[in-house]
Amino acid sequence: MDHIRLSEAGSSVIILDQSLLPLEEKYIKLTTLEEMAEAIKKLRVRGAPAIGIFAGYALAALAKQQCRPKAISSCCGASGTSDEGFIQILQTQGDVLKDARPTAVNLAWAVDRVIHAVRVEMFRARREDPTRLNANAGARRLAEAATREATAIHEEDKAMCRAIAEYGLEEVRKVCTDAGHDGPIGILTHCNAGPLATSEYGTALGPVLLGTEQGVKFRVFADETRPLLQGARLTTYELQKAGVDVTLICDNMASSVMKKGLVQAVFVGCDRVAANGDTANKIGTSGVAVLAKHYGIPFYVLGPSSSIDLECPNGDAIPIEERDPEEIRSKFYEKPVAPEGTECFNPSFDVTDAELITGIITEKGIFRYPYTESLTAFSK
Amino acid sequence: MDHIRLSEAGSSVIILDQSLLPLEEKYIKLTTLEEMAEAIKKLRVRGAPAIGIFAGYALAALAKQQCRPKAISSCCGASGTSDEGFIQILQTQGDVLKDARPTAVNLAWAVDRVIHAVRVEMFRARREDPTRLNANAGARRLAEAATREATAIHEEDKAMCRAIAEYGLEEVRKVCTDAGHDGPIGILTHCNAGPLATSEYGTALGPVLLGTEQGVKFRVFADETRPLLQGARLTTYELQKAGVDVTLICDNMASSVMKKGLVQAVFVGCDRVAANGDTANKIGTSGVAVLAKHYGIPFYVLGPSSSIDLECPNGDAIPIEERDPEEIRSKFYEKPVAPEGTECFNPSFDVTDAELITGIITEKGIFRYPYTESLTAFSK
Repeated sequence: MDHIRLSEAGSSVIILDQSLLPLEEKYIKLTTLEEMAEAIKKLRVRGAPAIGIFAGYALAALAKQQCRPKAISSCCGASGTSDEGFIQILQTQGDVLKDARPTAVNLAWAVDRVIHAVRVEMFRARREDPTRLNANAGARRLAEAATREATAIHEEDKAMCRAIAEYGLEEVRKVCTDAGHDGPIGILTHCNAGPLATSEYGTALGPVLLGTEQGVKFRVFADETRPLLQGARLTTYELQKAGVDVTLICDNMASSVMKKGLVQAVFVGCDRVAANGDTANKIGTSGVAVLAKHYGIPFYVLGPSSSIDLECPNGDAIPIEERDPEEIRSKFYEKPVAPEGTECFNPSFDVTDAELITGIITEKGIFRYPYTESLTAFSK
Repeated sequence: MDHIRLSEAGSSVIILDQSLLPLEEKYIKLTTLEEMAEAIKKLRVRGAPAIGIFAGYALAALAKQQCRPKAISSCCGASGTSDEGFIQILQTQGDVLKDARPTAVNLAWAVDRVIHAVRVEMFRARREDPTRLNANAGARRLAEAATREATAIHEEDKAMCRAIAEYGLEEVRKVCTDAGHDGPIGILTHCNAGPLATSEYGTALGPVLLGTEQGVKFRVFADETRPLLQGARLTTYELQKAGVDVTLICDNMASSVMKKGLVQAVFVGCDRVAANGDTANKIGTSGVAVLAKHYGIPFYVLGPSSSIDLECPNGDAIPIEERDPEEIRSKFYEKPVAPEGTECFNPSFDVTDAELITGIITEKGIFRYPYTESLTAFSK
């Protein structure tokens, strides 16, 4: 069951409230614009692709609500009788959603895409009626266009995740065959790049989830991923739900697990890939890559090709956000763990050097080192 | 001021209660045997050498109490009039201390050493009186022998720590000179091997503390050291107290800090060094060593030569304790961080391969790779 979906009537969005995971698994129904914006702000829905999917459905549900005439004049003060008025209301609602998390590129992109689709539908109706006497598409038709576009965004994300999963699964099976490895395939992953952040298979966890469906046995080691513990909170939850054998470790235990020969490949997601293959991802990823190289374990970055930024020459050009030192010093714990005023260094991401990356697995295929050549060829 | 010491009257031990650190800095006075045993059990005093020093002083204080005749018959039921009776009481008390933490080798060693010294004093008294008419040394003289031995244990530990600090400081200054490094010396350390675990300078933190006294500028990066956070709780506390610039990081941030060129050397302690140089230390140490090698940073193990176990051929022969999975899954946090029943791998230590270790710094000097040769030469 999708963790983001339209309600049966199409006028609400139903989501799994991720802010309660892993202790409580609760689906909530969001109907008003305020509820939807709050869900984004409070991280009830999180992960760039997931936020985009959510925003698309949110606008579709709000458009559907415009089909009930009484609701319109009371809530937004614009006339719902014309297509232009319909779109004007949707635009205002879309701006409220965008403001809920201004830096989320996928959010703005999804909002604009749904509104563009509705506008196209309006022009299509006008073209269909050369007399222009009944040129209005009408609320129902425009709302249907919004729902179609939102569904398309979701379906495209699923297809992309599935393609990444297929390429990744084929690759890791080949790695195991070449190495003569028998038995469960050991995967180490860092942070969370699973279905909750995207749809269906996720990115880094995709090959594991797809393979599990096909009867391939995996044993996944999930780094807890300090300071915010996405690995402990979300990766273990998602893999357990899917029936995958998962073992939680502290980040500093990865070396021991690799040394014991328990890891056949490392799978991580990515926030941005530079033109030379340098990859920004959750803090700690670069350390895992160094360990993998030392122990002779292939290290893969998995993500949509839209993560590849050919304008960015290398990792030095990727800005790294520094977060609240209290995340290290005191958050999550019952009491602070270090003396008051302790200086902390808390970067959110790090950059993994291209030469440490065995392959970058996208929905368009697997890119290999040297990436400057393989990625440039891709852009042509 | 020493964090373990005898009271002025010599009949109590005063310690800094480490179980309250870093939030509260409280010295407590322990007088009864029960209080002393409880302090060991509850980790109010911790770190192998520190426990040994404490046990020595504890026995010295208890011996001193035997000099007050009324206290003896009421608490232990043995006659305090003869040397043999005195030693018998001390032996019983020593056994209670040993039982407080049965696996602590230094604890038993220190107890036995103090009792042996008292016994030697008894025989010395007998030899001094050939008539054997007044052959008893007497409680005061035996108690003084106990105090002398306890003080010797402490002083020897200080001298050992100081020697390690001197060798380490000289080495890191040479590394910086050779590399043309100017400005503060960046040190990364994992877990806690400072004064609280030993005396005065500690082991891994020794070069930093000694150098700071001499006006050398350091900047230390302290790994928080999951799951029990000794780095966050103790290393930051100790270095701040000594006026050293210290920055707390999550374990997975070491790679970023090294990549930025902020680390000139890594200093870690050790639990056991095998004959080939493989070194067991707090979980995560081996990962730090791999990172250091990748980034071309020298990696040093610092510890007393008594940590070198020539009977142990290599790291494979060192047993690694696995601890409670709940330390990862739920301890320290307000709520559990992973779903109930999540499988966790929680080794307490790991083994760092000898070839990753630039030098093993002991009070007897610095051993270098290949260790099989350098350590064997040492044993001869």
